[in-house]
Amino acid sequence: MKHTISVLVENKFGVLARVAGLFSGRGFNITSLAVGETKDNTVSRMTIVVDDRGKPEVMEQVEKQLNKLVDVIKVQDFIDLPFIERELLLIKVKVTEGTRGAILSLAQIFRARVIDVSHHSLVLEVTGTEDKVKAILKLLARFGIQELVRTGKIAIARS
Amino acid sequence: MKHTISVLVENKFGVLARVAGLFSGRGFNITSLAVGETKDNTVSRMTIVVDDRGKPEVMEQVEKQLNKLVDVIKVQDFIDLPFIERELLLIKVKVTEGTRGAILSLAQIFRARVIDVSHHSLVLEVTGTEDKVKAILKLLARFGIQELVRTGKIAIARS
Repeated sequence: MKHTISVLVENKFGVLARVAGLFSGRGFNITSLAVGETKDNTVSRMTIVVDDRGKPEVMEQVEKQLNKLVDVIKVQDFIDLPFIERELLLIKVKVTEGTRGAILSLAQIFRARVIDVSHHSLVLEVTGTEDKVKAILKLLARFGIQELVRTGKIAIARS
Repeated sequence: MKHTISVLVENKFGVLARVAGLFSGRGFNITSLAVGETKDNTVSRMTIVVDDRGKPEVMEQVEKQLNKLVDVIKVQDFIDLPFIERELLLIKVKVTEGTRGAILSLAQIFRARVIDVSHHSLVLEVTGTEDKVKAILKLLARFGIQELVRTGKIAIARS
């Protein structure tokens, strides 16, 4: 099962490597990771998506160890909480006179924004859940994807 | 000077820890990091923002070492390239009957989307450059920010 884990850490060098090392040391592969500053610029929030490979008890141990790291302030696993997830995707799609209209229609349906244009390509900015991101990627694939960057998922608890 | 570095890596466990370790080993603090899958799900792209602390020649060495790591496919420093950057922000703002209108107006100006509502708070989804994200954070601060998650920056080369 996939876990979305939010880790509040002191913004110091080495923290990221230690946190990532804790997961890889137990053989867990991090699917996505996003780290950004919070309103306090000495504190960062990491959002980690990781598959427990059918071993939730080992994942629990990793989370306990995380909590013990000096620079870790708080660990929250969204597995028991209602939350909203979002991811950001930048995608450069090949475009011709014949396909431009279809691509722009798709962009509109997915509420994607065109953020760069050239004769032969368009760059779209898309935000959404993992499912939405997957859906637009699948639909754009037939036009030719030239480049693709994803942030990884971030999450916030529902009120 | 801040560098935005894009690193294409094999999606294996331990890669993230090794890459992060290379920067922290040289005393560079990673300001933001975003890791997501590419169209090939065995390959991930990491976007790293790091300050060279006035030592561009040491940063160059780190990039050379990155290139030598077994699971690293390609390293690109956007310092010499025109690129588009974006970041995603989820922000929970305190709301009252008296402030709701002002917050929604701000959201509209920044093209932010309301993605969750309760009696006492709103969750906004904002995308933009670092400057735009900073600007909206500054303006929302006076209403009371309850929670804040950022993805860190991702970047794509202009056509």
